[in-house]
Amino acid sequence: MQRIRNRTFRAVLAEGRAVRAAGVHDALGAMLAEQAGFAAVWASGLGISASRCVPDASLLTMTEYLQAAVQMQRQVSIPVVADCDSGFGNNLNITHMVHEYEAAGITAVCVEDKQYPKRNSFAPGNQDLVDTAAFADKIAIAKRAQSDEDFFVIARTEALISGLGVDEALNRGYAYAAAGADAMLVHSKQPTSAEVHAFLEQWDGRVPVVVVPTTYPDWHFDDAVKAGASMVIYANQGLRATIEALRTTFDSIITHGSSADLEVDLASVNDVFELQRLRQWLELER
Amino acid sequence: MQRIRNRTFRAVLAEGRAVRAAGVHDALGAMLAEQAGFAAVWASGLGISASRCVPDASLLTMTEYLQAAVQMQRQVSIPVVADCDSGFGNNLNITHMVHEYEAAGITAVCVEDKQYPKRNSFAPGNQDLVDTAAFADKIAIAKRAQSDEDFFVIARTEALISGLGVDEALNRGYAYAAAGADAMLVHSKQPTSAEVHAFLEQWDGRVPVVVVPTTYPDWHFDDAVKAGASMVIYANQGLRATIEALRTTFDSIITHGSSADLEVDLASVNDVFELQRLRQWLELER
Amino acid sequence: MQRIRNRTFRAVLAEGRAVRAAGVHDALGAMLAEQAGFAAVWASGLGISASRCVPDASLLTMTEYLQAAVQMQRQVSIPVVADCDSGFGNNLNITHMVHEYEAAGITAVCVEDKQYPKRNSFAPGNQDLVDTAAFADKIAIAKRAQSDEDFFVIARTEALISGLGVDEALNRGYAYAAAGADAMLVHSKQPTSAEVHAFLEQWDGRVPVVVVPTTYPDWHFDDAVKAGASMVIYANQGLRATIEALRTTFDSIITHGSSADLEVDLASVNDVFELQRLRQWLELER
Amino acid sequence: MQRIRNRTFRAVLAEGRAVRAAGVHDALGAMLAEQAGFAAVWASGLGISASRCVPDASLLTMTEYLQAAVQMQRQVSIPVVADCDSGFGNNLNITHMVHEYEAAGITAVCVEDKQYPKRNSFAPGNQDLVDTAAFADKIAIAKRAQSDEDFFVIARTEALISGLGVDEALNRGYAYAAAGADAMLVHSKQPTSAEVHAFLEQWDGRVPVVVVPTTYPDWHFDDAVKAGASMVIYANQGLRATIEALRTTFDSIITHGSSADLEVDLASVNDVFELQRLRQWLELER
Repeated sequence: MQRIRNRTFRAVLAEGRAVRAAGVHDALGAMLAEQAGFAAVWASGLGISASRCVPDASLLTMTEYLQAAVQMQRQVSIPVVADCDSGFGNNLNITHMVHEYEAAGITAVCVEDKQYPKRNSFAPGNQDLVDTAAFADKIAIAKRAQSDEDFFVIARTEALISGLGVDEALNRGYAYAAAGADAMLVHSKQPTSAEVHAFLEQWDGRVPVVVVPTTYPDWHFDDAVKAGASMVIYANQGLRATIEALRTTFDSIITHGSSADLEVDLASVNDVFELQRLRQWLELER
Repeated sequence: MQRIRNRTFRAVLAEGRAVRAAGVHDALGAMLAEQAGFAAVWASGLGISASRCVPDASLLTMTEYLQAAVQMQRQVSIPVVADCDSGFGNNLNITHMVHEYEAAGITAVCVEDKQYPKRNSFAPGNQDLVDTAAFADKIAIAKRAQSDEDFFVIARTEALISGLGVDEALNRGYAYAAAGADAMLVHSKQPTSAEVHAFLEQWDGRVPVVVVPTTYPDWHFDDAVKAGASMVIYANQGLRATIEALRTTFDSIITHGSSADLEVDLASVNDVFELQRLRQWLELER
Repeated sequence: MQRIRNRTFRAVLAEGRAVRAAGVHDALGAMLAEQAGFAAVWASGLGISASRCVPDASLLTMTEYLQAAVQMQRQVSIPVVADCDSGFGNNLNITHMVHEYEAAGITAVCVEDKQYPKRNSFAPGNQDLVDTAAFADKIAIAKRAQSDEDFFVIARTEALISGLGVDEALNRGYAYAAAGADAMLVHSKQPTSAEVHAFLEQWDGRVPVVVVPTTYPDWHFDDAVKAGASMVIYANQGLRATIEALRTTFDSIITHGSSADLEVDLASVNDVFELQRLRQWLELER
Repeated sequence: MQRIRNRTFRAVLAEGRAVRAAGVHDALGAMLAEQAGFAAVWASGLGISASRCVPDASLLTMTEYLQAAVQMQRQVSIPVVADCDSGFGNNLNITHMVHEYEAAGITAVCVEDKQYPKRNSFAPGNQDLVDTAAFADKIAIAKRAQSDEDFFVIARTEALISGLGVDEALNRGYAYAAAGADAMLVHSKQPTSAEVHAFLEQWDGRVPVVVVPTTYPDWHFDDAVKAGASMVIYANQGLRATIEALRTTFDSIITHGSSADLEVDLASVNDVFELQRLRQWLELER
């Protein structure tokens, strides 16, 4: 019985169809995303932090984020794209990061032009960016650190999140692409896709663009693709559904004194076993 | 800003009210269980394995189970009861286990009278038990290994799971209690509570009894308590609800091309932030 | 068989005798330091990094440093003083750090007034310090984060390393003590103890002072104590001896074609077993 | 700056020259072994356990052994051969083991025909072996679990350690080779090489043989090769030298009140920096 092997993110993107990625925080989420038809998973910093009940503010360490990403990647054949915050420090840190992620079998990482320690894009307060040239240098350093040409580095600009506008986002995008970024992620927290749409209209297409419709969830995938996006990340819907499901389940057990009413809405224990590939594993002991 | 401190399981049990525990596999689940009103959480071996998509068959290591339990305990004030399978090996292993769990701040563990490697109770095939005297010895060894008198060891018999009947379960229960077990967990996979009920009727009460109504979910908590149970574990309903929620969410995004329809049913991003205690943390940077 | 319990660093320091600490990078070193008569061990950032062959420049994560410190503390009764670099980031990070170290059983940490990522004090290039008030605030935040009054925070100033002179070191020392630091570590890379001696002469004694005679190794412990030091850390001699020993051993095996000539100079296999407490462990299986 | 890439063990062995491996317990030891001219390192179970001060008796988990092996492999270009005890359990465990080691970049593992939990070969008491057919099956299962044809599985027989004699060792060796083992390790604790020599004389050469001259250290490498060995492991000399060096160093500091007398015998701090490749790393920040 061999382990699951994964395709690289570069190979998946090269197929030419736009990629949908689901944000997950553990291997179980990754497997369910693959089963649902997602072409990649997003090892979400928000999600991994939230599963530990600590803020998405560089409190968990690279060790912990990497461990979570690796646990996902071991169980799915679709690639994990690892949310690597701002790269965990300076040029030394991002180099170490690329070494560690690549060696561990992760084929794509995303780093953003924020300070370290970073703060979640939707959190109140300081969202200051680092200087464009400094971050471009960091991207160049990251690219020089990879050993395998398939390793993929997504540069994420928080220019729109910081209120610096579309022009600044474009300038940063071009600088990062010039430095070697394999793709650009442009993040926005506007209630509509207008801002990101404006970015895509002007973007010259030198590298693919990734979008994350969290605050503008009604943007249809086909429209995002038509607008020029090559990848759409549904970053935290799974996390938020999990919270709601656990709340409902736990409240119901307390309120009703049993789980009897819930049973019809729960996956079965056999279903759990299938997700664990129990039958295949037990064949090894025959 | 101080960390969450937890009460010991012994203290919680000593209050005299029967304890409800929710099975969880990460800190997020633990916090939601506490918020719902559970008095303890069960760091479920099935759940932790399933979150990694590997069988509940001693594949994950003690290191990994302990790490999951500690991550939970850091975030809740209710005690974590750690499912420790069959104790990870022989008398040396269980001694090491008690050292490591106790030192890491876990106040209760549960070990079962199965072989190592173990197999989930609901899985097909071999459910052979170890000899009663050998397991009683293991319990005695575990109790001698603890440094803090509050550390709590639950002995779990799989006699009913193995089809050995209520008398054998009672014999084993008495032997384990005599060896120093602080409580007995009696597990059954019958479709009704009759078997466990029969056990409780004959049990002489020398130590508290724990039950796990997975296959007989209609057994009301009050009835279990009336029958003599001191603790009821709802071991995997949260896991099974999570699977269902992720499936529904991921399928909906693929099918509808966006998450717009889902939004009303999802916890909000601000809700996620509250579970991360973001506001309290950010006050540290003012 | 119970695990090793340790005394807190505060208790050890309170005995009134000056403390000698040996820098180590693993549990084996910690146990040998205890056997030799050291009253504490220093979980050295340089040592732990070097054992991994990566620079002492905030490349290893808090997770990895903490793991190393905990592995030491589990095996010795003397306290581990954990070298925590510059606190791993901002006020949130240092708060998280105190939570994690305290919960894991470490009773003393040391943080220095450097930027994050930091660089080893003896390394070439930038040794810039953070602002005095900002670091004092960080110390105050760290002290508010502890739950147990015994937890001990050593503030380390790199003012002498940065060439800012004794007055600046004193100013920083007083500011950090006022913010709640339990002790001051004053580091110097001069070839004699003169600089540190000057610091001690003027220091008003409000909190104990720790010194690290790496570049002035001829400073006798008694002289350091007479000059006012409460603790002397022999930070890296064990590491450097290990390197030399491994080089000699490996070269000899290659050169001579066997280890025969070496045997008289090696600890025996039975000696290894004793350090592992094999006999006591095996008694559990009788 | 790219990470160190390693050659596979299979490639190293294929060069046709006999391989010398040094037993090490951390990356520092691995790098020093490579610098001394060893062609491989042995991630020693005894050494890794001893560095943690716990017995070599399946107390550390696969997670911990794997982590140590990976930390070594990241820093050297010679291959790490991972001592995997008895495979951590049954056929499921050894399959999981192969998946995890292979995915983490380890190219060779060694498993022995002992029970789980195992006990060090030189320790007193039970050294019972598992049935030949059962272990051969385990080897076959391990070989079927690998994804990369270069992954290398060494089967180790403890037949001589258990006093079963050379014929039994040969029988087991042939059975394991027939099951797919890529090499045989034959271990002996006799004070001379006679027993292993007898094994090699009769061995038909179907797979390479590995020897470990711990108790017969005067066996010259060239003689072992002439006798038919393809690999000689110097398993614990580095560990034993480290213990002696730390003892001497720590005792000297306590006795003399300073490290002054030691300095000439210690590696320099700059030497430590070179082992950390500090200069190359710092170039990233220019």
